[in-house]
Amino acid sequence: MKIFTFGELMLRLAPEGYLRFVQADTYGATFGGGEANVAVSLAGFGEEACFVTKLPAHEIGQAAVNSLRRYGVDTSYIVRGGNRVGIYFLEKGASQRASKVIYDRAGSAIAEASPSDFPWEYILEDAKWFHFTGITPALSDNLAEITKAALMVCKEKGITVSCDLNYRKALWDTKKAGEVMGGLMPYVDVLIANEEDSEKVFGIKSEGDITKGEVSAEGHRSVARQLVEKFGFKLVAITLRGSISASDNRWAAMLYDGKEFYDSREYNIHIVDRVGGGDSFAAGLIYGLTRFDKQSAIEFATAASCLKHTIEGDFNLVSADEVMKLAKGDGSGRVSR
Amino acid sequence: MKIFTFGELMLRLAPEGYLRFVQADTYGATFGGGEANVAVSLAGFGEEACFVTKLPAHEIGQAAVNSLRRYGVDTSYIVRGGNRVGIYFLEKGASQRASKVIYDRAGSAIAEASPSDFPWEYILEDAKWFHFTGITPALSDNLAEITKAALMVCKEKGITVSCDLNYRKALWDTKKAGEVMGGLMPYVDVLIANEEDSEKVFGIKSEGDITKGEVSAEGHRSVARQLVEKFGFKLVAITLRGSISASDNRWAAMLYDGKEFYDSREYNIHIVDRVGGGDSFAAGLIYGLTRFDKQSAIEFATAASCLKHTIEGDFNLVSADEVMKLAKGDGSGRVSR
Amino acid sequence: MKIFTFGELMLRLAPEGYLRFVQADTYGATFGGGEANVAVSLAGFGEEACFVTKLPAHEIGQAAVNSLRRYGVDTSYIVRGGNRVGIYFLEKGASQRASKVIYDRAGSAIAEASPSDFPWEYILEDAKWFHFTGITPALSDNLAEITKAALMVCKEKGITVSCDLNYRKALWDTKKAGEVMGGLMPYVDVLIANEEDSEKVFGIKSEGDITKGEVSAEGHRSVARQLVEKFGFKLVAITLRGSISASDNRWAAMLYDGKEFYDSREYNIHIVDRVGGGDSFAAGLIYGLTRFDKQSAIEFATAASCLKHTIEGDFNLVSADEVMKLAKGDGSGRVSR
Amino acid sequence: MKIFTFGELMLRLAPEGYLRFVQADTYGATFGGGEANVAVSLAGFGEEACFVTKLPAHEIGQAAVNSLRRYGVDTSYIVRGGNRVGIYFLEKGASQRASKVIYDRAGSAIAEASPSDFPWEYILEDAKWFHFTGITPALSDNLAEITKAALMVCKEKGITVSCDLNYRKALWDTKKAGEVMGGLMPYVDVLIANEEDSEKVFGIKSEGDITKGEVSAEGHRSVARQLVEKFGFKLVAITLRGSISASDNRWAAMLYDGKEFYDSREYNIHIVDRVGGGDSFAAGLIYGLTRFDKQSAIEFATAASCLKHTIEGDFNLVSADEVMKLAKGDGSGRVSR
Amino acid sequence: MKIFTFGELMLRLAPEGYLRFVQADTYGATFGGGEANVAVSLAGFGEEACFVTKLPAHEIGQAAVNSLRRYGVDTSYIVRGGNRVGIYFLEKGASQRASKVIYDRAGSAIAEASPSDFPWEYILEDAKWFHFTGITPALSDNLAEITKAALMVCKEKGITVSCDLNYRKALWDTKKAGEVMGGLMPYVDVLIANEEDSEKVFGIKSEGDITKGEVSAEGHRSVARQLVEKFGFKLVAITLRGSISASDNRWAAMLYDGKEFYDSREYNIHIVDRVGGGDSFAAGLIYGLTRFDKQSAIEFATAASCLKHTIEGDFNLVSADEVMKLAKGDGSGRVSR
Amino acid sequence: MKIFTFGELMLRLAPEGYLRFVQADTYGATFGGGEANVAVSLAGFGEEACFVTKLPAHEIGQAAVNSLRRYGVDTSYIVRGGNRVGIYFLEKGASQRASKVIYDRAGSAIAEASPSDFPWEYILEDAKWFHFTGITPALSDNLAEITKAALMVCKEKGITVSCDLNYRKALWDTKKAGEVMGGLMPYVDVLIANEEDSEKVFGIKSEGDITKGEVSAEGHRSVARQLVEKFGFKLVAITLRGSISASDNRWAAMLYDGKEFYDSREYNIHIVDRVGGGDSFAAGLIYGLTRFDKQSAIEFATAASCLKHTIEGDFNLVSADEVMKLAKGDGSGRVSR
Repeated sequence: MKIFTFGELMLRLAPEGYLRFVQADTYGATFGGGEANVAVSLAGFGEEACFVTKLPAHEIGQAAVNSLRRYGVDTSYIVRGGNRVGIYFLEKGASQRASKVIYDRAGSAIAEASPSDFPWEYILEDAKWFHFTGITPALSDNLAEITKAALMVCKEKGITVSCDLNYRKALWDTKKAGEVMGGLMPYVDVLIANEEDSEKVFGIKSEGDITKGEVSAEGHRSVARQLVEKFGFKLVAITLRGSISASDNRWAAMLYDGKEFYDSREYNIHIVDRVGGGDSFAAGLIYGLTRFDKQSAIEFATAASCLKHTIEGDFNLVSADEVMKLAKGDGSGRVSR
Repeated sequence: MKIFTFGELMLRLAPEGYLRFVQADTYGATFGGGEANVAVSLAGFGEEACFVTKLPAHEIGQAAVNSLRRYGVDTSYIVRGGNRVGIYFLEKGASQRASKVIYDRAGSAIAEASPSDFPWEYILEDAKWFHFTGITPALSDNLAEITKAALMVCKEKGITVSCDLNYRKALWDTKKAGEVMGGLMPYVDVLIANEEDSEKVFGIKSEGDITKGEVSAEGHRSVARQLVEKFGFKLVAITLRGSISASDNRWAAMLYDGKEFYDSREYNIHIVDRVGGGDSFAAGLIYGLTRFDKQSAIEFATAASCLKHTIEGDFNLVSADEVMKLAKGDGSGRVSR
Repeated sequence: MKIFTFGELMLRLAPEGYLRFVQADTYGATFGGGEANVAVSLAGFGEEACFVTKLPAHEIGQAAVNSLRRYGVDTSYIVRGGNRVGIYFLEKGASQRASKVIYDRAGSAIAEASPSDFPWEYILEDAKWFHFTGITPALSDNLAEITKAALMVCKEKGITVSCDLNYRKALWDTKKAGEVMGGLMPYVDVLIANEEDSEKVFGIKSEGDITKGEVSAEGHRSVARQLVEKFGFKLVAITLRGSISASDNRWAAMLYDGKEFYDSREYNIHIVDRVGGGDSFAAGLIYGLTRFDKQSAIEFATAASCLKHTIEGDFNLVSADEVMKLAKGDGSGRVSR
Repeated sequence: MKIFTFGELMLRLAPEGYLRFVQADTYGATFGGGEANVAVSLAGFGEEACFVTKLPAHEIGQAAVNSLRRYGVDTSYIVRGGNRVGIYFLEKGASQRASKVIYDRAGSAIAEASPSDFPWEYILEDAKWFHFTGITPALSDNLAEITKAALMVCKEKGITVSCDLNYRKALWDTKKAGEVMGGLMPYVDVLIANEEDSEKVFGIKSEGDITKGEVSAEGHRSVARQLVEKFGFKLVAITLRGSISASDNRWAAMLYDGKEFYDSREYNIHIVDRVGGGDSFAAGLIYGLTRFDKQSAIEFATAASCLKHTIEGDFNLVSADEVMKLAKGDGSGRVSR
Repeated sequence: MKIFTFGELMLRLAPEGYLRFVQADTYGATFGGGEANVAVSLAGFGEEACFVTKLPAHEIGQAAVNSLRRYGVDTSYIVRGGNRVGIYFLEKGASQRASKVIYDRAGSAIAEASPSDFPWEYILEDAKWFHFTGITPALSDNLAEITKAALMVCKEKGITVSCDLNYRKALWDTKKAGEVMGGLMPYVDVLIANEEDSEKVFGIKSEGDITKGEVSAEGHRSVARQLVEKFGFKLVAITLRGSISASDNRWAAMLYDGKEFYDSREYNIHIVDRVGGGDSFAAGLIYGLTRFDKQSAIEFATAASCLKHTIEGDFNLVSADEVMKLAKGDGSGRVSR
Repeated sequence: MKIFTFGELMLRLAPEGYLRFVQADTYGATFGGGEANVAVSLAGFGEEACFVTKLPAHEIGQAAVNSLRRYGVDTSYIVRGGNRVGIYFLEKGASQRASKVIYDRAGSAIAEASPSDFPWEYILEDAKWFHFTGITPALSDNLAEITKAALMVCKEKGITVSCDLNYRKALWDTKKAGEVMGGLMPYVDVLIANEEDSEKVFGIKSEGDITKGEVSAEGHRSVARQLVEKFGFKLVAITLRGSISASDNRWAAMLYDGKEFYDSREYNIHIVDRVGGGDSFAAGLIYGLTRFDKQSAIEFATAASCLKHTIEGDFNLVSADEVMKLAKGDGSGRVSR
């Protein structure tokens, strides 16, 4: 099944281990970005995943492309041109010290792309699924327009559309986010969100103080219900992160189809790298929904995402078998020989 | 006291930190193997430990020898020849993601060794103790025969024999393991095992679902009792690992002399590297049994093994003093200045 | 506000990650030392911090100076001369295995400094605060004398003096420590100590077995009371470390002004590097006391110190904003974007 | 143009920098192998390059596949199965100390492949060029047979065949090499060789003592002439390496079409990594011959290969533009901004 | 003597060793930029060097500031604000493969600075020397204006001005460079240039094909003469680089005071890192001209620059003593114990 | 043949690659010292080599011992005790920048050893050869005495004694060196020296300016002749280093038996690490003289030493076969497969 994701692929520069930015004299240099992460994850599950973006013709752009090819993503729809690869600096936190992200993505090739770069009719010819996040339309007005153009082609061709709401306050304010995302929601079949983003983008509120690290199933159900009521999604998935500290999180999720709620198991995770956790969930959900019943799908998605937290980098490099094993209950971590 | 161990020493190739195999472009290159690990551990406690194996004459074989000399193991009985050093690839897991081992040991110098390589009468001249694991006889029919030849010399000379049951499904099936190991057990004085291996090799069952990470003392006692009944061991030690996750384990052990059960303290371990945990227990037990009473011996062995989980690599590089301090109850981890 | 600290800056040589000394073939090479750590921390909060010491004129001495300049400490009062930079080797522990420090500091430039190296009248001209620890006078008789000379100038000029008691058994015995430190206490306004050091240096006892990792507020209050009674300090701060293991500690503190006790929150810390934890507390306390009320000061100091445990190296490289955020209760460790 | 290469892809384990095997405790882990190197090089020039081999299904096998995907090689014809990835250990030499290679490739998935693994009619459907080296048929009798089967399909379909003679004494002796390679030569259009291999495999001799590091154009012409006379190749390319030391080499080449000799420029190379030098020449030659006249082709091939010596790893990661710039004479190494 | 330099400080991201961009998964992260490099070099010689620029308030900006403080540069005139730190990616070449620089500096804090950020009257109050390069005015029209404002204050206060012509084709074209730089030259006392830049910026030609790596003293004298005639500089220094390859260069320089030519020794350099070579020359020249006669000054400058080529990073971390030793003729490289 | 060497083993701390001390934040941590280097080299050739010294009982001392055991040196005569391991910091130079050594060895365990630590009658019971350098007696008066005691036992037992003159100006002045070494020379059979040290220690002069990097055979012959005349050595070996730069040296040697001069080949070496070059020569000479004729011995010694320059660290990790191959003329550096 050919799955397309569309967005920005950034160079991720991260000091080694738990070093702070001011201590580092080397950076780990990998690549990542919401939608690209989803594509890599799906390719790892064995899906035919295509990532669409624009990247400069120079060697840093090439290294970005290579980072996807390496893990089996189809990069043949990536446009080459523009001036720079967006960058984000990541400092990994521990215990009470939070991870810190500094974005340096203004003026990236994709943010400055124009609609003519992406002939969606041609690109999406054999697509069955299209995925994007709330980050892509936030990059520039052009990108919001280009995203909408893609969604219209999806509608036309009957391609399923999933969206991860992902609000980024560095890119736009809640008002603009609400307007733009509100205009795209009618094209979305499956929405993935959490409480905080739902409130920020659509003003949909719930109870429970997230900073206290509590996972409140009740509050989340009300959010899911309101989202479906407001936009008519076929499915809404809510991720539930309980931040005990930067080193330990609780993690669970919930799926709502307008009638039933499907709750996943909850995991206590000792974190290696939590960036891309949400993206791995989205990939797991797409994979699960096209293969399993809803309960199994949400279990698969949550287990996939749980495993992501144990893997360095943005990409969730796990096989479907590994996810399945955990989804079925074996999280003992005993050595596999 | 001259202690001999016999088996395979492998090149251990492990990605840095928690990187997955597909992410790695460097491997940590150390050496390890059940019986060699025991020898290094004993040398670290101050014992005269000799490791017997066969290794190629080339530089990788030399590096393997050097890895033992460095830590004080007597390598003068190692035969040089054959074609390759066995290899195992190790990917370290974390939290719900299990560690993964890929073996590439077929055709190693030791697996292809012949009986004439090991003149046991000469080698074991001054030996007081001989230790092997269930891995060695599994490497090849020749090795099973060579091991038996060694054990017969031990019997003859009154050398104490200990065996760590260690079932490796990649090397043989349970049927063959049962036959071969069954044939060696009459020569064994001290058996070290866990529930799972006891069942796989000898069909001796107990209760408690190990994958659930529960340490059930009751179940283990019944296993120990059956083992002594069946083979007449002087001592049986059972290790009890409770796998909470790949990052956190509970760890304890028990010794049975056919009459009494001696239970160790239980440790909650935050893991650095758990490979070689069982081997460090065996070394601690050998050291303890030749010096202390049974209760102290099992405490020493368990404490030694607890410390191993905090040390990178296969080898348990701790002093007898450090083990003693923990065995006596100081596990607070306060800085020693 | 110009704050001076005085003591030794050592080269810290530490194997990578959790490697033991005997495994290492590279050392991380950073610098640290009680009073220098305090200066760096204060500079990071935005204070004008000056560190006074003596360091050799050669390149290793220069690298030591540079390590402070890099983080904004004023190094213009550092005397250059002498033969060697003191060294300490640090092996990081984990779980039940304690961290280990081997000192190699005898004969360092500062330990062999002479009184004429430090014209305190000139150095402390604009000083508002002077901080030292129990390590400095322990380095040599000369140093004890030089420290006293500094304190006398402080008295004269009305400079506030704080002292972190810090007993180091490798440098002197409890008897000599008691005599020398006892002679300096009359000049001290703010004393920082823990139970163990109070007992060792001044024979002031309390209940609670520290090796059991228990934090007993009661016992600590009695220690604080006795210290104030004996020496008439304006303020005594007691740090309360509960060592669960080398990987996990509880951490809290208490301030006593002769009338009231001010207790901080208690933190459960998953440790990255605990060396310098006490120094970061001292810096936080100095910063807090000159800005906030006593309750806020002790919360700030404890939060600063909590964060230090998540940072590699001796230096607490955090901003006052980051500390404030944690002191106000957000320890969830959620990614800051 | 679809170009196929067929052979073994090995895991290359190399100590960092100039460390000897016995000093290393990490290995750089990359992948390489004669024909795979050619494919990567061609993909880098922009060609459609497909590499055919067999690799285990496990993660080390997957990492091998990924190493090719990353650089744009089509890996869809790679068969997955078998037990192990062949390994070679590489110690980089310097000055008078030669580089050292230890092979550990026996029993690799490709060496144990069977003819049915490679349905050549299907695989080579759209092929225009097929390349192999003397290593592939040396791996096993099966491989010799499989190679011949491929060549017969090439003949049938009019696919151009190039072969790099590459004698490996660790794999077979000169007698067997002569017989097997002799049987394959009738299918070969373009032969690449050097003096030493020509003599060892086909007994074709020339003058000049290679160990003295002299590049004798005359001697090489006689070799080329004899090769064409004996086997009727359309083209013979001879590489001329002058080994001054492990750090500095002279490098040139020559092309012979049965009538004319085309000599390349000679380069004085300060070496970064010379492994894969010959393979980069082959790739350059294939690229050059399909685009340029013979003189330009041999210049392109030699320049490509010159650049390879400045790049770490087996793969020649250069663009056609970079090669062209050097082939046209700019080897000044001035910074390109 | 207080010396000011003004320009951009960039984050320099460079793959380790000789790895190509597409191979790297870590980058060395240091900082550099023409004028900052000069300041660091002068601080290393013991001068009071101040660097003026604008850098973001975030941690990457702070790390940039720290990189200068560490080496003793006065950073108190650096304005904090703006969005990004300019970046350049550096791939180190070897032998025939040239080093490659990819700039990603558009939109940096300094490029977007406004005149009000730099109150020159205040900044340059105690300045004795002001140095800039042709890169600064090329960054933006604002920067050209700000530079001119600085130069006017210099004129007024009698501050000596030096300029390194440094043409960067990625920033502007030769026409604009000629206009802007032409307008600044009347304020310059000491010009540093090479043939190529003189031609590109001012159309001043000479003989000798630089790509052939030849150092032609004659040609350079004519360039120096024309520069003095056209702009009336007090002094012109011309650097003469002979690029044998990316690994080996010849290096010399020449000083002209309108009457006499002063030629330096020529060095054959085996290169470690040639970036910043010109900047180290400028620093050496400033230092030399304020202390020595002209012949000694040009020898000092050339020797300083020779040493820079042996040091990693942009900064020339050498002492004046080390330079002097080489300038006086000891380049034997014998171990200094 | 049992060969003893006696001296200090130091911790060698060296920044990575060509980094300067002020840039480093990690040090490579290996061990080295003149006589220990000779022992390792001899063990590598297959000799029974014993190194005698005193090292602290702590883990850094243990790591020092292990560094020798690893390479097969007999460490059973090493006394454990004292306070510190001597340290030397090494900064590797390149091209015109010299390598730099900073010693921090005062107060080391061996420097503070007492005569009773070394019962030479017992230690040297089976010795055939004893080697020391001019560094050992320079460490302290005690060491000079202890060395003399060893030499007297050698005389008594007919053990051959070799000495490498090695003058270290940081340890003593030429006057004291002359007195002490003069008193030891009567016990020496084989002296190894170079021109510079001969002049400094014994005032024996020759022509040729060493800093100009010229190797003058004539001058060296006169030195050798005078040494034999003055002290009556059986053999004198003179090493001839021509320092072109820190990156490239010429290297040769000469042996004189009082009658004939035996000159070695001269090597042009591109240097990886030149520390220990002289020690590797001494080891090669000892090995050669006990096996070959004099011409072959000096060729072996020079070739061994040539190879040392290509190996990182103090130790010359080469086999006798590798040395022999080079001594016989193959220095082409062609890959050994």
